[in-house]
Amino acid sequence: MVETFPGEGFAPSSELVACIEACLGCAQSCTACADACLSEEHVGELRRCIRLNADCADVCSTTAAVLSRQTSPDLELVRAVLQACMTACAACGTECEQHAQMHEHCAVCARACRACEQACRALLAELG
Amino acid sequence: MVETFPGEGFAPSSELVACIEACLGCAQSCTACADACLSEEHVGELRRCIRLNADCADVCSTTAAVLSRQTSPDLELVRAVLQACMTACAACGTECEQHAQMHEHCAVCARACRACEQACRALLAELG
Amino acid sequence: MVETFPGEGFAPSSELVACIEACLGCAQSCTACADACLSEEHVGELRRCIRLNADCADVCSTTAAVLSRQTSPDLELVRAVLQACMTACAACGTECEQHAQMHEHCAVCARACRACEQACRALLAELG
Amino acid sequence: MVETFPGEGFAPSSELVACIEACLGCAQSCTACADACLSEEHVGELRRCIRLNADCADVCSTTAAVLSRQTSPDLELVRAVLQACMTACAACGTECEQHAQMHEHCAVCARACRACEQACRALLAELG
Repeated sequence: MVETFPGEGFAPSSELVACIEACLGCAQSCTACADACLSEEHVGELRRCIRLNADCADVCSTTAAVLSRQTSPDLELVRAVLQACMTACAACGTECEQHAQMHEHCAVCARACRACEQACRALLAELG
Repeated sequence: MVETFPGEGFAPSSELVACIEACLGCAQSCTACADACLSEEHVGELRRCIRLNADCADVCSTTAAVLSRQTSPDLELVRAVLQACMTACAACGTECEQHAQMHEHCAVCARACRACEQACRALLAELG
Repeated sequence: MVETFPGEGFAPSSELVACIEACLGCAQSCTACADACLSEEHVGELRRCIRLNADCADVCSTTAAVLSRQTSPDLELVRAVLQACMTACAACGTECEQHAQMHEHCAVCARACRACEQACRALLAELG
Repeated sequence: MVETFPGEGFAPSSELVACIEACLGCAQSCTACADACLSEEHVGELRRCIRLNADCADVCSTTAAVLSRQTSPDLELVRAVLQACMTACAACGTECEQHAQMHEHCAVCARACRACEQACRALLAELG
């Protein structure tokens, strides 16, 4: 879809597509992980995980949308959004990793967060 | 991710996963199509397309999130959201199809809308 | 803001503005109520409330966005979104009401849900 | 609503409430401004405005949601989101100001962007 844009993109389309897909995947994983945590018996121990999952899902969805637009971008805005997304993924990934041995959903979600953090970092490097 | 839920889901996971993925794909396509339309020379002829793209992206994102939650669902709510998503995808798909021969992004987006409409219909049929 | 639109709106602006404001208020209340529930000692008894809060916040945000657009609307889409929003607010409001005597945040949120449900119903009646 | 949280908040509730309200107001204004621009005769001259409106609406909605959660926040994440929101509001406000004499919706939206930028800055200062 990204390659049908009738102009020049603000970044190489391979990095852009990879980052959009990582953001969408991470947003879905975080929403599902928050919900799976909510159904766990010891939900009281997963409060921080649920909270960070919710934040990370919101930030990743917004990042995917901003990156999906190539018309007349404001690169400072794009960079600030990528920075916020990296920060959200790092915080959520770190928290999920602490529950990964106990809960498969946290293990899957931690990997999605780390992949997204890395994709944002790679795209930020391209943007200079 | 959907299969790591620690309980029984409200629908067969294959239909659920297919519908979540169709919604995420359609949301991204619609956001990108609105933006690509905005960069077209004859943007004035694409106003309705841009508007329906924006609506459809919002509805599909919300639908993906609602379907990603399996804890204690309200099935009437799930059905109403799927119904709204089918309606949005049908409206946006019909509009995009009218520009599909002229603009590749509209052709790609129309297919994403139709796929999402169909996935919502299939899931609704499962829910009864 | 709604009244600065350079054309004719699809509904009387007083009902439209009231409904957009009710949706934004309900979305914020639901996000905050889910979070407040998450911090309660007996979070295990509030699982369904947290889940419905999350759904209702997503649906209300999307509804506010769809209603904020007046260019070339698809009225069937607008109606389906309003219907989904009414259903979400009714489900979430009913759940919050059951915890309203115990938790002030559920009492406040229940009122926001009922106000939004009513505003959607009034706007739907205008749209015929 | 914010004051019903059963714990200690991460910021003074007056600044927090002001910032959440500014974000919700700016998100709505930006969605409506993008749509009003889309209905203007000379839409071709408003492409950048529509694009930045869309970005700013997404970022402000996410910021309102993150700020509405007080359970176990990650302050680095909160700061990065506020920073991204300030950047988005500054970019969109600057663009809207250039069309403010021509289009009332851009004038209203520019004010909402500047108010939100300022509320984010004030909250960031509180967070240190």
